Amino acid sequence: MSRSTSVDAESPDLPDDLYAVILAGGRGARFWPLSRRARPKQCLSLTSEQSMLQETVARLHPLVPAERILVVTGPVMAEGVRAQLPQLPPQNILVEPSPRNTAPCIALGAVEVARRGGGHAVMAVLPADHHIASPDELRRILMAARDAARSTNALITLGIRPRYPESGYGYLQVGVRMGAWGGRSFHMVERFTEKPSVDVATQWVEAGTHLWNAGMFVFTVDAIRDAIREHLPQTAMAMIELAGNASMLASVWETMDATSIDYGIMEQSRHILTVPCDPGWSDLGAWTALDTVLPSVEGGKGKAASVVAVDSVDCTVFAPSKTVALVGVSELVVVDTKDALLVMSKSRAQELRHVVARLDTEEPHLT
Amino acid sequence: MSRSTSVDAESPDLPDDLYAVILAGGRGARFWPLSRRARPKQCLSLTSEQSMLQETVARLHPLVPAERILVVTGPVMAEGVRAQLPQLPPQNILVEPSPRNTAPCIALGAVEVARRGGGHAVMAVLPADHHIASPDELRRILMAARDAARSTNALITLGIRPRYPESGYGYLQVGVRMGAWGGRSFHMVERFTEKPSVDVATQWVEAGTHLWNAGMFVFTVDAIRDAIREHLPQTAMAMIELAGNASMLASVWETMDATSIDYGIMEQSRHILTVPCDPGWSDLGAWTALDTVLPSVEGGKGKAASVVAVDSVDCTVFAPSKTVALVGVSELVVVDTKDALLVMSKSRAQELRHVVARLDTEEPHLT
Repeated sequence: MSRSTSVDAESPDLPDDLYAVILAGGRGARFWPLSRRARPKQCLSLTSEQSMLQETVARLHPLVPAERILVVTGPVMAEGVRAQLPQLPPQNILVEPSPRNTAPCIALGAVEVARRGGGHAVMAVLPADHHIASPDELRRILMAARDAARSTNALITLGIRPRYPESGYGYLQVGVRMGAWGGRSFHMVERFTEKPSVDVATQWVEAGTHLWNAGMFVFTVDAIRDAIREHLPQTAMAMIELAGNASMLASVWETMDATSIDYGIMEQSRHILTVPCDPGWSDLGAWTALDTVLPSVEGGKGKAASVVAVDSVDCTVFAPSKTVALVGVSELVVVDTKDALLVMSKSRAQELRHVVARLDTEEPHLT
Repeated sequence: MSRSTSVDAESPDLPDDLYAVILAGGRGARFWPLSRRARPKQCLSLTSEQSMLQETVARLHPLVPAERILVVTGPVMAEGVRAQLPQLPPQNILVEPSPRNTAPCIALGAVEVARRGGGHAVMAVLPADHHIASPDELRRILMAARDAARSTNALITLGIRPRYPESGYGYLQVGVRMGAWGGRSFHMVERFTEKPSVDVATQWVEAGTHLWNAGMFVFTVDAIRDAIREHLPQTAMAMIELAGNASMLASVWETMDATSIDYGIMEQSRHILTVPCDPGWSDLGAWTALDTVLPSVEGGKGKAASVVAVDSVDCTVFAPSKTVALVGVSELVVVDTKDALLVMSKSRAQELRHVVARLDTEEPHLT
């Protein structure tokens, strides 16, 4: 049995310094009408009986025990998050006072991890709303990245081997190899690029020079504190205040730089490592991305009591308690909830935000 | 005030020999999923707060009082019909033991009208699932047709002036003028033609030689009995048995010719009169026909708690209790019910029967 498989079972080799900081503050409006403010994307059960958040926690077992899993979420959804994760100590749910993007959330997580584990503790930052087909493989990757983070004190971002030229993702250009941990090669990141054209993405995927940036990061508390001090000094000051007095959060929060960790830290730093990998990652960023993980039904993919399709193809149906009949339609997204119904052309899925924006004003009880 | 308007108010001129026989036995599967076996099209409230059946009865007031209105319906839906029409004496709801098309229903109605009013009584046979924009005008037409039926003893079918070359309707070729009653001309019908091609229908509409056959008939009991004796002798025998003993219905019913009045009587007879008219009649035969009578909503026509449409046009939406969002879709029918949801291309509306046929077998609780 190789060392890299030891994370699949209770094992004396499991590290006691690895923490998970799960980012669960997003609204996920691209999954309206199923997603709502108080029931965001990460709290939905789209692909299994468990919600995406519950799966995110579950797939860390046994590598990271519940006591070392922190969840950062918003005030409206905090109650729902606590209800979904009864195994987590209540103080492990960190509530951001207002949405300020991911960098402040990670800073908040870093202060808490430092308080518990000190500057050498390692944080794995994980989005709560992604799908991972191979949790075993993810744990092996995280274990290797933890070793690399401890050895190099670098910031590490997981690099997903691209399966197709997706133009909606961020890409990492792979640089020189820096070494191997857990049997895996770690490379410098040459450049971050958000949402390239399909042509450019196609070149990159064919050349094998780039990886998808999945928003999963591993670093020591010291490493992220140093990077924040360099690139987001306001946030670094706030972290110091917060470390001295946790009750200051509400006032200190507003002084943190409202930016993403990608833009605020990763793209500004010259010492980022990546580990090329493939844990079966999917962003599932919108209804149209679900086809890869939803079961087949007549007329396409989906979840419904039943689907009867006449001359209908490539539809995505989500109406768990209903029989859905499709007649002569194709490439539609059909989502039914108690109080709202969506019928959308797949090619226009990016327009859904206009619907949610209008309902925010006109019928806020529906968003 | 001309005589023809006297039917709009309580008036000593109202005839006491005019009965209505409302045909309410259809299943209306083309309105699935809203229509079900026990809640067929005529019991739906599609265009107003009242059901189509309730409107059919209401628009006869004051020309035909409730005591002289008979409704023929099926066993599954009889209870719903009674509940919708509490003003009718219970014995005015005639229950056909099994579906055998319209001729037996009219025979059954004729036996009952004869029992109450004798052979000179006049029956207006009216479908329960049509829309009439001008009830006043319909009553004036029925009054004129009653006069014509009494004077000529002919079978009279209302002829709707066609508004466009509909290829799904039956047409009447207008023949020689036979006279005028109630200020309206009555003509011989030269020929009945079901569902002509669009080209042929266009010629007819432009030439003004044809009318739509709306399935609304007026005749004396004697006239329809004579016609049935000539063209459907089995049915005539059954009527005699039934007149002698109403409790024989179940056994006698099966001996009646299972055919429509159009094919079994009207198309076989040489002495049919028609009165060209326009009471704002619409068949509303399927979801796609509702656009003419449904209110406008964003993205098309329909009934919903609200509709938010982004780049969507010409849709028909029926989801009275929900907010419906349409994104980048056109010419769709979207119908939401408690347990079933339909999304259908308007151009494929005729395929809906395949859905209902499959559900009849696979999920009969939904049909």
